[in-house]
Amino acid sequence: MSAPSISPLAPKGGFPDLPAIAGVRYAAAAAGIRYKGRDDVMLIEIAPGASVAGVFTTSSTRAAPVLDCEIKLATQPDGLDAGFAIIVNSGNANAFTGHAGQKTVDDVTHEVAAMLALPQSHVFSASTGVIGQPLPSERIIHALATLRGGLSADAIEAAARAFMTTDTFAKGAGAQVEVDGHIVKIAGIAKGSGMIAPDMATMLVYIFTDAKISQLNAVTFNAITVDGDTSTSDTLMIAATGVVEMPEITSVTSTAGIAFAQALGTVMKDLALQVVRDGEGATKLVEVRVTGATSDADAVKVARSIANSPLVKTAIAGEDPNWGRIVMAVGKSGAVADRDLLKISFGDVLVAEKGWVSATYSEEAGAAYMRNEELLLDVDLGLGAGSATVWTCDLTHAYITINADYRS
Amino acid sequence: MSAPSISPLAPKGGFPDLPAIAGVRYAAAAAGIRYKGRDDVMLIEIAPGASVAGVFTTSSTRAAPVLDCEIKLATQPDGLDAGFAIIVNSGNANAFTGHAGQKTVDDVTHEVAAMLALPQSHVFSASTGVIGQPLPSERIIHALATLRGGLSADAIEAAARAFMTTDTFAKGAGAQVEVDGHIVKIAGIAKGSGMIAPDMATMLVYIFTDAKISQLNAVTFNAITVDGDTSTSDTLMIAATGVVEMPEITSVTSTAGIAFAQALGTVMKDLALQVVRDGEGATKLVEVRVTGATSDADAVKVARSIANSPLVKTAIAGEDPNWGRIVMAVGKSGAVADRDLLKISFGDVLVAEKGWVSATYSEEAGAAYMRNEELLLDVDLGLGAGSATVWTCDLTHAYITINADYRS
Repeated sequence: MSAPSISPLAPKGGFPDLPAIAGVRYAAAAAGIRYKGRDDVMLIEIAPGASVAGVFTTSSTRAAPVLDCEIKLATQPDGLDAGFAIIVNSGNANAFTGHAGQKTVDDVTHEVAAMLALPQSHVFSASTGVIGQPLPSERIIHALATLRGGLSADAIEAAARAFMTTDTFAKGAGAQVEVDGHIVKIAGIAKGSGMIAPDMATMLVYIFTDAKISQLNAVTFNAITVDGDTSTSDTLMIAATGVVEMPEITSVTSTAGIAFAQALGTVMKDLALQVVRDGEGATKLVEVRVTGATSDADAVKVARSIANSPLVKTAIAGEDPNWGRIVMAVGKSGAVADRDLLKISFGDVLVAEKGWVSATYSEEAGAAYMRNEELLLDVDLGLGAGSATVWTCDLTHAYITINADYRS
Repeated sequence: MSAPSISPLAPKGGFPDLPAIAGVRYAAAAAGIRYKGRDDVMLIEIAPGASVAGVFTTSSTRAAPVLDCEIKLATQPDGLDAGFAIIVNSGNANAFTGHAGQKTVDDVTHEVAAMLALPQSHVFSASTGVIGQPLPSERIIHALATLRGGLSADAIEAAARAFMTTDTFAKGAGAQVEVDGHIVKIAGIAKGSGMIAPDMATMLVYIFTDAKISQLNAVTFNAITVDGDTSTSDTLMIAATGVVEMPEITSVTSTAGIAFAQALGTVMKDLALQVVRDGEGATKLVEVRVTGATSDADAVKVARSIANSPLVKTAIAGEDPNWGRIVMAVGKSGAVADRDLLKISFGDVLVAEKGWVSATYSEEAGAAYMRNEELLLDVDLGLGAGSATVWTCDLTHAYITINADYRS
């Protein structure tokens, strides 16, 4: 696979400066799993005293590393104060690889555990790339010494580059926030070049913080909705090293918990939007904002129906203000809607209201707006207080080119 | 819009010879609604003594003609032995056109009723084309005299051509079947160039028979599943003229009812497959057959998840035997599935079983199969007796080209 050019929607400043997280070190190496001339494996070491949490794809065909992570997280020995490690490779997803797939996970996490003197139950893995081909674990194991030698608090960008697949840029986001008078740092990386549902390419997200958090699941995932029903390997893990001398955050409803969750949410949204910005072949970043639904659930239905519609997405690619396709997407969403109360705006341009095109709308104004790189599609159902926002990208010729020939 | 070249999947023999249905006459004309140099309006006259039935899109933003048809069918005066008429235009969907849209329907059906001496409640209309622009009813009304002059039992192909939009060929199907010793004829036409759900272009289907049927809804739609949750205008209407001297068919479970419903089902499937064969930009016709599900409903979920996946459809366009994407689509379908019981075949080529690629599979055999124009994707979940079949087509560059610039 030749290196694709960087998405036109990539953040202009390149990879951000992320805060170093005390207790976390990163390394990357070239194991030669599938790609040539680039790193394809990364190792993250987390110091003793940390806590970890994770959410994973709900796919019924999820990959061996996902199943292994789920089991390990569910059966952590109480009171074990060892560190953790995360080992991730690109090029091969180790998905639908039968029982050999689990053996590969065992072999790799066993070797990482031995090398870093960790219990194997504290070593998590992920794999992303082609499905259904055996993952050559020996190549990863052969690269472990190089990875250990390279571990550094400053190598997060190298780690982010090593797990890219069809990604055209490395994705990172960070935050510093005052919690109970203490400065807490958050740094995260992600891979994925997604069209949002359906059929997002595998998304892997790793987030680190030096905050002291005792109920990590409660404080993080309960406060933030994660949509992981897509690929066979989607993984989101968070580690809190607890290095900051501060009272433990134990609840998401405490002042400290709220402050931390807000900062974490900002980092997660930043990473998720970068994944959309790297949508395969994308040239437009589109925010679909739905208001006035009878419930938030209905608003989500409408927003997804619009955001996932190939007809809407191709119209956006063609810079065509084809609001008729939005009307169609609202109609087929299954949500309660009234044709004559619907109001559609493209940014500040009011397009349709009262069951018809707006008296103030001109096709020229609509077409001019659609030439923007970032677009807001605003749909007011006029019925209630339900609202939702979904981000998506356009559907272009480049998407077909990338995906009709991904494995070559 | 320039005329697209005919789909490579179009039936090789061109428009079929359809049986004339005693009591039904067709006409087409050029009203100049949007397209130049082609017919864009068609009229169908059905003789007194007929019965009609219809099913329509469930979209909450359905078009004015659909709402009008629904009301008229629900409020037919008892015992009124008048004929019927159907007037259909292409180029403009009269959808999301506010209250003016209903007035257009009233004006057109009023004029047709007056011209043919029918009650207005017996005149049905449909419109297909762009959404949200006023339909110039005067152009249709101006063409009515020409239409009346052209009414002919043999003009069904001209009618099928007049309501094409992005269709690249006219679609017709027919059958003759012996029912209770009487030869019964069925002839149907359709327009639509669909990707199946989601986002099928408007599908309009009109089917005519000379059979004598008293409970038309029960005998037809109850026996056949119709999926109409897509566009703002999807319409399927059936008219039975009852010209054949035969005992009335009153039940779908009678011998006569079963014989008729089977023939009708064949015609409907033929028309539906022609719509898939005319999928925008399609180069492959794909049958997705799912067996071994815990229920038929689960099988449908899996079949649709595969058939609607942009990643599966682009792989097919690229002739890539990328069965990993099928595994992914099974996993995200929401149906009960067990990764290690899944069995996937491409035609006769067994690809994957027991959670991994089949020992007998070769990439060469898979790639050779994918070069066929018609493909069978066979997925056995290995769990139960639930099954489903869905047809779809590939997702190509031409789809993007067609839909990024539909309105120009």
